[in-house]
Amino acid sequence: MCLTGQIQRERERERERMEKENSNASAEVMRNKQVIYREKVQGSLKETHLEVRTSSERPNADKDSGAIMVKNLYLACDPYNLHLIKFSTQLGSTVSGYGVARVLESGHPNFKKGDLVLGLTRWEEYSLITAPETCFKIEHTDVPLSYYTGLLGMPGLTAYAGFFEVCSPKKGDTVFISAASGAVGQLVGQFAKLFGCYVVGSAGSKEKVDLLKNKFGFDDAFNYKEELDLDAALKRCLPEGIDIYFENVGGKMLDAVLLNMKPHGRITVCGMISQYNLEQHEGVHNLMHLIWKQVRMEGFAMFDYYHLYPKFLETVLPQIKEGKIAYMEDIAEGLENGPAALVGVFSGRSIGKQVVVVSRE
Amino acid sequence: MCLTGQIQRERERERERMEKENSNASAEVMRNKQVIYREKVQGSLKETHLEVRTSSERPNADKDSGAIMVKNLYLACDPYNLHLIKFSTQLGSTVSGYGVARVLESGHPNFKKGDLVLGLTRWEEYSLITAPETCFKIEHTDVPLSYYTGLLGMPGLTAYAGFFEVCSPKKGDTVFISAASGAVGQLVGQFAKLFGCYVVGSAGSKEKVDLLKNKFGFDDAFNYKEELDLDAALKRCLPEGIDIYFENVGGKMLDAVLLNMKPHGRITVCGMISQYNLEQHEGVHNLMHLIWKQVRMEGFAMFDYYHLYPKFLETVLPQIKEGKIAYMEDIAEGLENGPAALVGVFSGRSIGKQVVVVSRE
Repeated sequence: MCLTGQIQRERERERERMEKENSNASAEVMRNKQVIYREKVQGSLKETHLEVRTSSERPNADKDSGAIMVKNLYLACDPYNLHLIKFSTQLGSTVSGYGVARVLESGHPNFKKGDLVLGLTRWEEYSLITAPETCFKIEHTDVPLSYYTGLLGMPGLTAYAGFFEVCSPKKGDTVFISAASGAVGQLVGQFAKLFGCYVVGSAGSKEKVDLLKNKFGFDDAFNYKEELDLDAALKRCLPEGIDIYFENVGGKMLDAVLLNMKPHGRITVCGMISQYNLEQHEGVHNLMHLIWKQVRMEGFAMFDYYHLYPKFLETVLPQIKEGKIAYMEDIAEGLENGPAALVGVFSGRSIGKQVVVVSRE
Repeated sequence: MCLTGQIQRERERERERMEKENSNASAEVMRNKQVIYREKVQGSLKETHLEVRTSSERPNADKDSGAIMVKNLYLACDPYNLHLIKFSTQLGSTVSGYGVARVLESGHPNFKKGDLVLGLTRWEEYSLITAPETCFKIEHTDVPLSYYTGLLGMPGLTAYAGFFEVCSPKKGDTVFISAASGAVGQLVGQFAKLFGCYVVGSAGSKEKVDLLKNKFGFDDAFNYKEELDLDAALKRCLPEGIDIYFENVGGKMLDAVLLNMKPHGRITVCGMISQYNLEQHEGVHNLMHLIWKQVRMEGFAMFDYYHLYPKFLETVLPQIKEGKIAYMEDIAEGLENGPAALVGVFSGRSIGKQVVVVSRE
């Protein structure tokens, strides 16, 4: 769907929402569909680890409680969800992650009923957000709201901060991005191209490689599943070596990249998705190249760059409107389809940013 | 021997040298004892890979050739020698490495007969240095000349630049140093203490651990060979975690350190001596912690910091004279003992900086 059509559609929905709210607001109060973390994850995340159920309770945000109660609209499927599942969530609790939501009740002075927010919420219809200070208020609604789960959300800020603040890019640098068709990778590649770098990506299917070359404007790309020798693939695509590696996968790919780094190269470690589902992480053998080529390898977290969010929007919103940035979403309709969508992010099934629509209001 | 006594002794030798040179200079012209790289190194370096022989040829530095001919005095035994042996040297050629030497003939305008230099030379009595621009002229001779192979040479500059330029230290940081009794490690620890950090080191014998605690002023130290669980040892010595890891060994130690890094910690990769003798480097499994704790890991080479050498001397010479820096050498007398001394650096036999004396003039 074209951008204008999509926005038009959202405006219509907004009108319908307000009409509906006025007419029969109380009818749906007492149910809350949720995705629950049911079983301890060992190895890969499977759909059976999760369960969709309906609670008969809906949270409230009391006056002056400092909390807000929201209706969730769009949920992001990020590797970060798995991190939260593995490290923070108790069995039986609701899956958490970033999402776009509408404030229904506010006990916090900075938010009022009707505000749209982007922040850490839960995989359910209605959520209580107890620390809304960590949410961004969505001011620009002339782009599709779902974009705030990806391009204009945490993956976007991650790509922006990771590339411009951690990679120390210079015009003409050679940039390699793994998992390049993912939510962050596709943006890093486009930022790097707009900045004047030579950009190569790897992905896990012919379809994704075609997207990288033909939709996202990468200079070259390869399907790592079809390469017998990752080192040789990198030497073919980047014969002079790599100045910047934007690391999303870890393991064997990192080992091959280390062999191909240029002196004073930078490896920005954003993720190691190939390792998340392993009980014992693969060994990386070529770290000696960090010394031999004076390479800097740096892990970063988007949280440290929250303060850049306004600057990021200021840069990226015009680029979206001018058509300089391409973006792809993979939409799952309804919380029922949430578990499958999330599992698909790790199996490599999703193409582009995987979003779960809870409600189009 | 005390510092003053050692300097006194060197001055006497200098006088003897000049007398000897005037009386019978030509007698020893036509021999040149050398340490040769005889056999390809696979696995560990052994004495049998090297051979001491005497050539009947001595090099000359012709006028305006741009080269200098030197008499080697003190040779450094560094891990870097093995790097040169493995990667640069042809079988049958002379081992190369850093050393202190006296200029006997100069074809370069910046050097004259009698100058003392510190630079990349060969393991032989007389060497031709074809790019003397890379040598430092030794101006301060009120410290033992052998110090220029270690404390005042490349290991010193490595420790200084590695700590102050790469580690981004802050007062109060917790610092862990592996191979801490080695030439670089003992200095990093002392620089860190003088700077106001809490410093812990690991080494491979009780004797070395005692030195770290009692001579080099480390806050704590442990013998990694006696620890069944390196992670537990680190947690015992640094219960709040590690801000800075000065990495000299690699492998299992790096894996244990990664588990104990504090958020925004820095790992400065100076060496990975546990890996140098392995055909296949050990896998490092815990790199995910780079992301989880936003850790920066950076390889560096002292070459990039040559320009800091004068500033380094300016800082360290007074500290030596004021007794603020302790330093230990392990002296091997004569080129004949060079191969055993070099092998000792990798087997952990040497304590302090291993030096080979070619000539005290």
